[in-house]
Amino acid sequence: MIIEIAQDAPSSTMAAIMQAAEDHRLVANSLTNEHGATVVGIGGSLPSDRLDLPGIARVVAAHKPYMLASSEMRGPSIVMVGEVAVGDGTPVTMAGPCVIEGRDSLIENALLVREAGARILRGGAYKPRTSPYSFQGLGEEGLRYLAEARELTGMPVVTEVMEPDQVELVAEYADMLQIGSRNMANFPLLKKAGKSTRPVLLKRGFSATLEEFLMSAEYILSHGNPNVILCERGIRGFDSAFRFNLDLNAVPALKELTHLPVIVDPSHGTGRRSLVPRMAMAGMAAGADGLILEVHPDPDSAMCDAAQTITPATLAQIQRGVEALHGALTPVFEPMRAPEPMVAAAD
Amino acid sequence: MIIEIAQDAPSSTMAAIMQAAEDHRLVANSLTNEHGATVVGIGGSLPSDRLDLPGIARVVAAHKPYMLASSEMRGPSIVMVGEVAVGDGTPVTMAGPCVIEGRDSLIENALLVREAGARILRGGAYKPRTSPYSFQGLGEEGLRYLAEARELTGMPVVTEVMEPDQVELVAEYADMLQIGSRNMANFPLLKKAGKSTRPVLLKRGFSATLEEFLMSAEYILSHGNPNVILCERGIRGFDSAFRFNLDLNAVPALKELTHLPVIVDPSHGTGRRSLVPRMAMAGMAAGADGLILEVHPDPDSAMCDAAQTITPATLAQIQRGVEALHGALTPVFEPMRAPEPMVAAAD
Amino acid sequence: MIIEIAQDAPSSTMAAIMQAAEDHRLVANSLTNEHGATVVGIGGSLPSDRLDLPGIARVVAAHKPYMLASSEMRGPSIVMVGEVAVGDGTPVTMAGPCVIEGRDSLIENALLVREAGARILRGGAYKPRTSPYSFQGLGEEGLRYLAEARELTGMPVVTEVMEPDQVELVAEYADMLQIGSRNMANFPLLKKAGKSTRPVLLKRGFSATLEEFLMSAEYILSHGNPNVILCERGIRGFDSAFRFNLDLNAVPALKELTHLPVIVDPSHGTGRRSLVPRMAMAGMAAGADGLILEVHPDPDSAMCDAAQTITPATLAQIQRGVEALHGALTPVFEPMRAPEPMVAAAD
Amino acid sequence: MIIEIAQDAPSSTMAAIMQAAEDHRLVANSLTNEHGATVVGIGGSLPSDRLDLPGIARVVAAHKPYMLASSEMRGPSIVMVGEVAVGDGTPVTMAGPCVIEGRDSLIENALLVREAGARILRGGAYKPRTSPYSFQGLGEEGLRYLAEARELTGMPVVTEVMEPDQVELVAEYADMLQIGSRNMANFPLLKKAGKSTRPVLLKRGFSATLEEFLMSAEYILSHGNPNVILCERGIRGFDSAFRFNLDLNAVPALKELTHLPVIVDPSHGTGRRSLVPRMAMAGMAAGADGLILEVHPDPDSAMCDAAQTITPATLAQIQRGVEALHGALTPVFEPMRAPEPMVAAAD
Repeated sequence: MIIEIAQDAPSSTMAAIMQAAEDHRLVANSLTNEHGATVVGIGGSLPSDRLDLPGIARVVAAHKPYMLASSEMRGPSIVMVGEVAVGDGTPVTMAGPCVIEGRDSLIENALLVREAGARILRGGAYKPRTSPYSFQGLGEEGLRYLAEARELTGMPVVTEVMEPDQVELVAEYADMLQIGSRNMANFPLLKKAGKSTRPVLLKRGFSATLEEFLMSAEYILSHGNPNVILCERGIRGFDSAFRFNLDLNAVPALKELTHLPVIVDPSHGTGRRSLVPRMAMAGMAAGADGLILEVHPDPDSAMCDAAQTITPATLAQIQRGVEALHGALTPVFEPMRAPEPMVAAAD
Repeated sequence: MIIEIAQDAPSSTMAAIMQAAEDHRLVANSLTNEHGATVVGIGGSLPSDRLDLPGIARVVAAHKPYMLASSEMRGPSIVMVGEVAVGDGTPVTMAGPCVIEGRDSLIENALLVREAGARILRGGAYKPRTSPYSFQGLGEEGLRYLAEARELTGMPVVTEVMEPDQVELVAEYADMLQIGSRNMANFPLLKKAGKSTRPVLLKRGFSATLEEFLMSAEYILSHGNPNVILCERGIRGFDSAFRFNLDLNAVPALKELTHLPVIVDPSHGTGRRSLVPRMAMAGMAAGADGLILEVHPDPDSAMCDAAQTITPATLAQIQRGVEALHGALTPVFEPMRAPEPMVAAAD
Repeated sequence: MIIEIAQDAPSSTMAAIMQAAEDHRLVANSLTNEHGATVVGIGGSLPSDRLDLPGIARVVAAHKPYMLASSEMRGPSIVMVGEVAVGDGTPVTMAGPCVIEGRDSLIENALLVREAGARILRGGAYKPRTSPYSFQGLGEEGLRYLAEARELTGMPVVTEVMEPDQVELVAEYADMLQIGSRNMANFPLLKKAGKSTRPVLLKRGFSATLEEFLMSAEYILSHGNPNVILCERGIRGFDSAFRFNLDLNAVPALKELTHLPVIVDPSHGTGRRSLVPRMAMAGMAAGADGLILEVHPDPDSAMCDAAQTITPATLAQIQRGVEALHGALTPVFEPMRAPEPMVAAAD
Repeated sequence: MIIEIAQDAPSSTMAAIMQAAEDHRLVANSLTNEHGATVVGIGGSLPSDRLDLPGIARVVAAHKPYMLASSEMRGPSIVMVGEVAVGDGTPVTMAGPCVIEGRDSLIENALLVREAGARILRGGAYKPRTSPYSFQGLGEEGLRYLAEARELTGMPVVTEVMEPDQVELVAEYADMLQIGSRNMANFPLLKKAGKSTRPVLLKRGFSATLEEFLMSAEYILSHGNPNVILCERGIRGFDSAFRFNLDLNAVPALKELTHLPVIVDPSHGTGRRSLVPRMAMAGMAAGADGLILEVHPDPDSAMCDAAQTITPATLAQIQRGVEALHGALTPVFEPMRAPEPMVAAAD
C-alpha cells in the first residue's frame, strides 16, 4: 500500500501512519516525491479507519514487492552523482578503463574520456574475476588514483564495491558505488549500500528477471538510500558469438515499472568492440538516461575486457551520435520526464 | 573458396572454374556483385593450378558454411520488393495486420498504414498457430484480398508461406514470401523458396544462432534466389515478462557477417504494444534497414497478436522517429552502404 | 470440455454430442480410452441441457489447448510400433545410425543393435542438415535399405519425415514416422502425419515449452492419429560445453500432463558420447518409457553426429543398466501405468 | 602446470619447486592426492631445467584455470562432513527444512528426516530472499537450534553463509558451510570460505557454465580449503512451468572434469513437489554422490519454498529408491571411484 501525504498535512498524520503500520506489524518506508511530498510505502494493507487522517493526498491499494522502486511511488527520479544529474532528460556518458592499471594511465584515460564527452569517470579498484588467478585490482591504491583523477578532471567517479566491509572505504573515495552483475543478489551488500549516503549504480544480474532486479533495488531503497541508478548490461544467451545479449526490451519496460534512472552498458552487453557504437545508439534510442562504456587509449593492451574496450576516438563518435539522436527523438516522443522534477534527496 | 571474375574476363574462365569444381566434386554457385561482376562460391578449395586463368580478380581462400551469404562474397545487397528497394540506405517500414481478417478490413488497414508511412503491406493468409484450434487464416481467399489491397494502394505485399507446396501459389499473389521463425530450419521450404523468383523475408528462428540463421539463408541462395532479407524478431528468454527478447546485438553483427539487408520486428520481439515504439527506434539505431510491424485500427479486437499490435497513429509516430533518427545518425556513422550499390539480380 | 461415454450408452448419445458441438461451432474429436470407452474432447463448453443424455460417464469442464493429449482425456496410452509396445511398462530402446550410409552398413548396424538389446531400428533417409552443403541423406534409396533391414532383423523401423509430401512415401516403408525437433512446429507436416495410420515419434523443439510441445501433439491427434510418442531430446542452453541440455524435468512433468508415452534421446541431449550412458540411466530413472540412441560400429567415422554416437558395446551396457534400473525402481514407485491398459486404437 | 611429487622425494624438491614458481612470479598451490602424495598446481609453465629434481613422479603441462579442482590434479576426493563421508561410493542424502522456523519444529524435522534415511541435516539460519520484505531467517538463534538438533540426532549439519563476516560464526556451529547459487560468484565470500577448516557445499549459479562453477571452487581450494562438494541445483530456462531446469548433463560432465564430489538438489531444480522423487532418482542415475532435499512435516505450511518441499514419507520413498538404484547400477557401470581412495586432507 502506498500513501502520499500532502505537503501541508499536520506532522501527526505521518506519525499516525507509522504507528498504524507498527500496530499491524507491517514494514513502512518513505520517500520524497518529485513535488517534495512524502510518500509512504507499506508492506501490506492498513484498515481504512486507520487512514481517516488529515492531509492524505493519495492511496494506492496495490502492493508490489518493489513498492519503493515502483512507478506508483513517485514520478521520475533524478540521481545526482557529484554535480552530474542522471535522469533529468540530458543523456550522461560514464566512461573509463575496466580496471585501474596505475596512476598515470588512469589520469591519461580520464583526460581522454572527458575530452571525448564523458561526464563521469569509471574504473575498477576491486574487480570480481571469474578466475582466482586473474589480476584482482589495485584495491585502495586504485581508489586513491581515482580520487586524484577526480581532482584533476572535475569528473565524479564510480567504482565497484564487492562486499559489505568495503562500502565505507569505497564511499570515502567514490562519488557513486557500483554493484556488479554478479552481486545483484548479494543481499548483505545491498543492505549495506542502502545505509550509505552515496548513490548506487546497480547492474542487472545477467540472468535476473526485471522483477528480481527491482527487488534488489528495493533492498537499497528500503534501507534508506533512494539514489539508485539501474543498469542493463546484457543477459546470458545461447549464441556463443556474443559474450552477453544486450536486452534492450528492459529499458522501456523498466521505464514503465520504476521511477529510477536507467542506463545501458553496451561494452559488457556485446563483448565485442565493433558492436559497441551501434548498440550504444540502440540503448539511447530505447529510452535510456545514459551509457557506461569501457574505454582505453590502447584497447588491445587493456588488462581486462580488451575485446570489448573502445578507443577515445570511438567514444567521441558515440558521443556525437548520442547528442544527435537525443535531439532528433525528443520532439517525436512524449517526454518521459515530468516538466520540473525535483532532485531526489536522501530522507 | 570465393572467386571473383573480372567483367572483361573471357567466358572460358567461368567455364573452367565450374569444370574444376565438378572435377573435385565441390558445389559451386555464383552471384552478381555490386559492381556487376560474377562471384563464385565453392564449397571447398580448388588447387592453385586450376586457377591460373585470365580475368580472376580476387580469390578468398577461407570457406564459411554460408559462403554465398557472407560479406566476403560481395558488398551490400539491395533487394527489390516490387518497386521498393530494401537495403539502399533509406529505411523501409512494412506494416499491416497479423492475420487477414476480411477484404474490407484489410483494405482499410492498408490505406491507414500507407498514410502513416509504411511502404510495404504485410498480412497473413496462412498462419502458423501453436494451437490447432486457433484460427488458421483465410488461405487463398486472403491472398486475393492482399492482391486487391496492392492494386488499391500501390504497395507491394509480403505474406507467409508455410510449406513447399504453397510457394508457387503464394508467389502468384505476393511480392515477397515470408518464412516465419518456426520455419527457419524447414529446409524443404527453404529449398523451394530458393527456386522462386520472388524475394524472401527470412525470420530468425527464436533460438537460432546467427550462424544457423545465415546457413538457412544460404539454403535459399544456393538454390538460385539471391534476394533474401533477414529479420531479427526476438529470441526466447527466461523472463516471462516478455514474449520474446528482441536481440539487437544481431543487427550490427549480421551487418559484419553478411551482405544481405536486415530488418527488425519489434512487435514479436517484445510482445507488448507499449514497448514497440522505443524498440523500433532501437532497432533502427542498431543499424537495421527497416522495420516490420503489426498494426490494426482497433488493436484490442485483432484476431491474433492483439497484445503486440499498435494503432496507425502509433505507426505514424514511429515513422516520424525513424526519419528523424536516420537524419541524425547518418552523418555520424560511416555509411554502411557502398555509395552506388547495384541492385542484386537473380542469376 | 471432455465427455466420456459409457460403453453401454446408446449410439444416439454420441450423435447428440457431436450435433451439439456443431450447433455451437465447437471442434469435437474423440479417442478410445484404456477401458474401451469413447471420450470426446470439445473445444469449448456445451450448455448443460445439451448433456442431459443417457450413458454419459464423466464430464470435465476444464478446457486445455491440448485436450486430446491431456491426462484428463484418458489413462496411459500404449503405442504399437510394429509389434513392439511402447508405454506398457517395459522399457523400449530404439537405436541405429544417425543417417543411413549404405545398405550393408545399415544391415550390420541393425544386427549389432538388435544383439545389444534394441527393439526398434532408427536411421535417417531424409536428414535436416543445418548446412546446405552437408550430406542430405539417401532419400528413398535409404528407405528401401531400412525396409530390408526390417525384413532381416524383425525389428520395426522409425525414420524422419521432413515435409508433408514425404509422409505417404515414408509411411510405405517405415513403421513409425519421426518428426524432428526443428519441425515440431511445422504445422502442415503435423496435420499430414495426423492423417497417417502410422504412429508418430514427435521430438520436442529445442526451445519449446511443454505446452507448445503438447499442442503440436494435439495437431496430430486432432487430425485423427492417436498414436503419438513424445521425445525429450535436449533444450538449447547457455553453456557451449554441451550441444543441448537434456531437460529431464520434462519427463515426470509430461507424465502428469499427458497420457502419451515419453522417451528420451540422450545422444542429442548431450552431444557428447561419454555422457550418453549415464544420461540414458537418468532418463529412465526420471520415468521415461524408453530411449532413442545413435549407434555406429565405428562412431568416429559416422557421417553425422559422430561426437554423440556410441558403439554397440556401449549400447549393450546401457541396456543392462536399463533393465537393472527398471527392476530396482518398479517396486519403489507406484506404477505410473494402469494395471491392464488397452492398446490405443485409431478411431 | 601440475607436478606430482613422489612420497619418498627429499623435502628439497618441494622447496625448489616453490622457489621456481616464485622466481617466475607464478602462483603455486598444493593438494594431497588419494595416494598421500603431494601434487602442486602452478599457474603457468616452469622451464624444464627447473624441474630436473629428484622425486618428481608426474608432470602435466596443460594449465586449466581450475587446476586444483581438475581431474588432472588427483583421483576422486572424499569430503568428510562430521563423520559422514561424501564421495566414497555410498550415496548420502541431506535433508531438512528450507528455513529454520523455530527450535521445536527443527528438532521434529531432524528426527523425521533421520528416520527417513537422511544422514546430514540441512536448514537455513541466514536466508537470501529475493524480496527485502520476506522473512530473512533467525540468524544466530537458528544456528543454536541447528547445533542442538545435531546433539540430539547425531547428524552433522549444513547451513548457508551469505557474507564473509558470517563465515567464522557459522563455522562455529555448522559442520559444513553452504554457499548458495546467488553467491557462487561472490568472490570475497569464496576466499573467506577457503580459509575455513569446514568443508564447503558450493551450489552452482543458476546461469553459470561448468567452467565458471569450477573456477569458483578453485577460489576456495586455492585459499587452502580442499574440502568442497559441488551441487547442481537447476539452471534458468525459458519454460515458466518450472522454477528451474535441473541440468543433469552437469553431473557426468563434472565427474570428467573434477575430482570433487557432486550432489544434486531436485527441490530447487524443479520447484515442484511432485517432480522431486523422479528427479532425485534421475540425479543419482546420472552419477551423483548424493542429494539435498527440502523436507517439512507439513509442506504447505513451510515458511519458504513450500511448493517444492516434500514430506518425510516421500523422503523415505526416495531413500528406498536411491538404495535400490545404487545396488542395481553399481555392477553395470565401472566404478567411478578408485578402489581405496584416501580422505582428502587440508594441506
